[in-house]
Amino acid sequence: MDLTKIKQPNFLKHLTKKELEDLAYEIRQFLINKLSVTGGHLGANLGVVELTLALHKHFNSPTDKLIFDVGHQSYIHKILTGRTEQFDTLRQYNGLCGFPKMSESKHDVWETGHSSTSLSAAMGMAIARDMQGLDYAVVPIIGDGALTGGMALEALNHIGHEKKNMTVILNDNEMSIAGNVGALHKALGRMRSAGKYNRMKDEIEVLMKRIPAVGGKIAQTAERVKDSMKYFMVPGMLFEEFGFTYFGPVDGHDFKALEENLQYASKTEGPVLVHVITQKGKGYQPAETDQKDKWHGVGPYKIDSGEKIKPVDDKPAWSQVVSDTLEKIAEKNEKLAVITPAMVLGSKLDKFQEHFPKRLFDVGIAEQHATTMAAGLATQGMKPFLAIYSTFLQRAYDQMVHDVCRQNLNVAFGIDRAGLVGADGETHQGVFDIAFLRHLPNMVLMMPKDENECQHMVNTAIEYEDGPIALRFPRGNGLGVEMDSTLKNIPIGKWEVLTTGKDAVILTFGTTIEMAMAASIQLSKKGMSIEVINARFLKPLDEEMLHDVMKRNIPILTIEESVLQGGFGSSILEFAEENQYHPTIKRMGIPDRFIEHGSVQQLLEEIHLTKEQVIEELTNMLQMDNNKQKRA
Amino acid sequence: MDLTKIKQPNFLKHLTKKELEDLAYEIRQFLINKLSVTGGHLGANLGVVELTLALHKHFNSPTDKLIFDVGHQSYIHKILTGRTEQFDTLRQYNGLCGFPKMSESKHDVWETGHSSTSLSAAMGMAIARDMQGLDYAVVPIIGDGALTGGMALEALNHIGHEKKNMTVILNDNEMSIAGNVGALHKALGRMRSAGKYNRMKDEIEVLMKRIPAVGGKIAQTAERVKDSMKYFMVPGMLFEEFGFTYFGPVDGHDFKALEENLQYASKTEGPVLVHVITQKGKGYQPAETDQKDKWHGVGPYKIDSGEKIKPVDDKPAWSQVVSDTLEKIAEKNEKLAVITPAMVLGSKLDKFQEHFPKRLFDVGIAEQHATTMAAGLATQGMKPFLAIYSTFLQRAYDQMVHDVCRQNLNVAFGIDRAGLVGADGETHQGVFDIAFLRHLPNMVLMMPKDENECQHMVNTAIEYEDGPIALRFPRGNGLGVEMDSTLKNIPIGKWEVLTTGKDAVILTFGTTIEMAMAASIQLSKKGMSIEVINARFLKPLDEEMLHDVMKRNIPILTIEESVLQGGFGSSILEFAEENQYHPTIKRMGIPDRFIEHGSVQQLLEEIHLTKEQVIEELTNMLQMDNNKQKRA
Repeated sequence: MDLTKIKQPNFLKHLTKKELEDLAYEIRQFLINKLSVTGGHLGANLGVVELTLALHKHFNSPTDKLIFDVGHQSYIHKILTGRTEQFDTLRQYNGLCGFPKMSESKHDVWETGHSSTSLSAAMGMAIARDMQGLDYAVVPIIGDGALTGGMALEALNHIGHEKKNMTVILNDNEMSIAGNVGALHKALGRMRSAGKYNRMKDEIEVLMKRIPAVGGKIAQTAERVKDSMKYFMVPGMLFEEFGFTYFGPVDGHDFKALEENLQYASKTEGPVLVHVITQKGKGYQPAETDQKDKWHGVGPYKIDSGEKIKPVDDKPAWSQVVSDTLEKIAEKNEKLAVITPAMVLGSKLDKFQEHFPKRLFDVGIAEQHATTMAAGLATQGMKPFLAIYSTFLQRAYDQMVHDVCRQNLNVAFGIDRAGLVGADGETHQGVFDIAFLRHLPNMVLMMPKDENECQHMVNTAIEYEDGPIALRFPRGNGLGVEMDSTLKNIPIGKWEVLTTGKDAVILTFGTTIEMAMAASIQLSKKGMSIEVINARFLKPLDEEMLHDVMKRNIPILTIEESVLQGGFGSSILEFAEENQYHPTIKRMGIPDRFIEHGSVQQLLEEIHLTKEQVIEELTNMLQMDNNKQKRA
Repeated sequence: MDLTKIKQPNFLKHLTKKELEDLAYEIRQFLINKLSVTGGHLGANLGVVELTLALHKHFNSPTDKLIFDVGHQSYIHKILTGRTEQFDTLRQYNGLCGFPKMSESKHDVWETGHSSTSLSAAMGMAIARDMQGLDYAVVPIIGDGALTGGMALEALNHIGHEKKNMTVILNDNEMSIAGNVGALHKALGRMRSAGKYNRMKDEIEVLMKRIPAVGGKIAQTAERVKDSMKYFMVPGMLFEEFGFTYFGPVDGHDFKALEENLQYASKTEGPVLVHVITQKGKGYQPAETDQKDKWHGVGPYKIDSGEKIKPVDDKPAWSQVVSDTLEKIAEKNEKLAVITPAMVLGSKLDKFQEHFPKRLFDVGIAEQHATTMAAGLATQGMKPFLAIYSTFLQRAYDQMVHDVCRQNLNVAFGIDRAGLVGADGETHQGVFDIAFLRHLPNMVLMMPKDENECQHMVNTAIEYEDGPIALRFPRGNGLGVEMDSTLKNIPIGKWEVLTTGKDAVILTFGTTIEMAMAASIQLSKKGMSIEVINARFLKPLDEEMLHDVMKRNIPILTIEESVLQGGFGSSILEFAEENQYHPTIKRMGIPDRFIEHGSVQQLLEEIHLTKEQVIEELTNMLQMDNNKQKRA
């Protein structure tokens, strides 16, 4: 079948099991082929081919609401809703989004990216439906990993209480993003194995009848015993305790079993949970046998061998530099404990975990717990380092305020993927962290200019003993600079002059230093002398250097790959106001809107965060300043 | 016994049951007396008198770590650790904090205020202990309400996984802050009633033996049946599923039962949960019989009658105005649904709930879920209004970013207790919300000058259809202004000139308008003409009015009861920078540190946010400006 001909999913209603199986095969081949070129979330999507077909066959999207938690597993949904032809542009600028996107299709009723939101969204939709007297199914599809996120558990608790009709699909692949963590995971394991006892129901009843009839108190007890049988017959007792009717476990690659259970679920009043077992990477040998989940999100690869086609870049990844430095420090510093919320691989901590298995704590998708647990460690004299993506630290804002900064505890943060992240797009851009951390008392926040400074900042963060400290670093690879063999400390709040100049000053840090330096060099050829300062501490500012700069009363340009509102540039405006300096200041950064997916370079051009713009701004400022001086 | 003589809790070790009971009685009388004057969290503390005594008798604080979740129930702990004499200053400026506070005592090993943090903190401490090869008990004491908070559930999951030694005390009073919500609550109910079956264990074993011996497959099944018996004998099966050993339910007012169970717990390897049933308000008739939890946090009261001694203030509470307005709107607008995270009483929504029981959703302590559920409602054309305290909205920052603002959904927020809150102190000050919401694209944020404008803003928020919108309002009572009988809309982003002036302009909003107006009047007597603008939209700014103001090139003073970093004043600096205006601007607001408890007036004086300071700032600015003009 020609997948590009599919416009709506309703054709599925009439397909036979054989036709569905053929279609599943074709979709798998399509995904394996397309993603070998574009990259994308291969493993998760290969795991849910049959499940997505079964859902679209059984339900009527978009009247019925399919809500994909996290959303990187929505590729088959995209194919079934008429977006096959756009797969060549997957995750590219102006191309198909890697997550559900309302503007792409009416079938995308909820946008995701961060995990564990689907149950709350579903609850809102179910309430809306009932208040409006409508009748449609609400179907969140959530992975076993996402289920451990606090907000998913909050939602489970509320859904079980309100008893709204809802069909939760638990997509259990035993390793949502990576190896799963936690007691819930173990409980799911027991449910899986309990499945085989399901058919014993009849035998149990036979057995129960053999219990001799007795009277009085013993009879009461016998009744309780029979009651407790439900825990035996219902492997999903945990969910039953939460108020759900549990169906499963169901083989997520068996159309017949899926359809049967969806039918049971639809006939059941109140919230239902269908426990579906799927295999991540199903149908593609290299991904199927992937124990370490390296096929979760991939770049281009050779189809036959599964060999990854790496862009030619021998520079070390920022996260690898951080992780290697942590290892180096851990050898000597017994106080160091590293925490990750389900991102051992993403944060390149696998080697650290191998060498220090008892000092690496993977808490699962649980950013709030991770942050406050780090605070708990710090109260007892340990030095926790929380490795976390900028976008996911958003989940722990209150824990940063209330537990870490308010108690002024020695917690170190490695904020990964700070700045624009590219293909993952607007749900994952790490552009808010400066604005949401800068206003917290006691916080120290820094960003390195290169991976050598990065290793020193990791060291600085671990050795700092006056409260919370964070270094933020971008996604991707460093600059390939030479690394010092000995770690040192960067003085807190001290910036660095990269090149001196007398006509204007650029204050910038991290990724935007490169465009600042290039602009400075280019302008110097036109006779303009531009100073560039590595403002590596976003908090505290280098007040000594700032006083010096502001007293010179020459134009100041701030550049940041971060939101302008309340960002670094604003802190410079605040400093000028507090000290009543009045130089000409201009800020460059990310404007007040969400930035979609594309290469970082394309996005920077879209928002005019480029060398050319730096040159233009500086030229204008110098012109204005000249005029001002002439007038004066 | 003279409670003021108690310096350390170790004297408890030698007390008899009778002596403990006498001490419990004295402590209750002490609390009832003291709090009748100072106010405070009476109900919760009366409920945990025996429990706190039993914990301090069994464990060795501070070597063993007692961690009070939320912390408002730590008064007995404070008495037992030498702070009895300070109770006259409870929750007052420079007085005893209403929550655990490290600076008060070495026995306060963790500070709380927000709920649900204790399990994560405990996990951090348990890990630290084991990494350091130490041996002490870690004892979080968490209420049934706090247990539904997402981060507590994240922690449960991780603790059950890691199997660290820890004794979790579940303080189940069936109504932590108010009536409890959720499936977990129901499960706890089942455990409570299952308790009475505990003693039947022997009978069950007799019964089991009557099952005839059988061979083959049936024998296997019989084994499974016996296995499933554990669910019968262990009422806390839910916690057992999470990997805990469960003890209970235990009568929390019975010293013998408490001690027995704590001994069992201490002898058990791995994480243990002791389920303690307590009665909130125990020992004080008015609080004991309080169905609506009005004795949770109280002001002064008459001991005999329980009658509340209200300060003479017939002005309506801000939250009452919001709630009444919502009721008015709900009569006509069927799209309105109101959501609260466990704050029906705190947000004065009890009357709304009575009139519209199906349109008020109390989701429990679950701010993340509440926010994203609201977003889900909005996708289906409903208009959700989330009533939430400023300090608790911090828990939902990521949900604001990722689900509400990014999807630009029509969710209205009523941000209660914005600004300084007084006696609750630094964990509860609502001073960050402007800084953490202002940088979010699509957000509209406003604050009314009085309760009449407040009702119109509620109306505006409900009728607004272009995305998220929030009004923030302070704790306490309004100004007593006349209320319009008809609701209207405030034009989005439009400020209001309260008094014109030609020498300088004050931009301010909400509570600080009063001091601005008073300063303007006082300065006018000295011949200075100060304009005061009600900058009621914090986002978007009234750009038209700002252009007008800045073009006048006179000094501008911004005043906000909110953090200065990235706050409203900074947005004015940003506007000036963006448009390259260069007036003299000064900002007044909350400095970069956490503000402790005290009356709001005392705190404002401490941080120099007063009429006198406004006058001084303006006088200085006008002086400077004169000099500048003379120089020019």
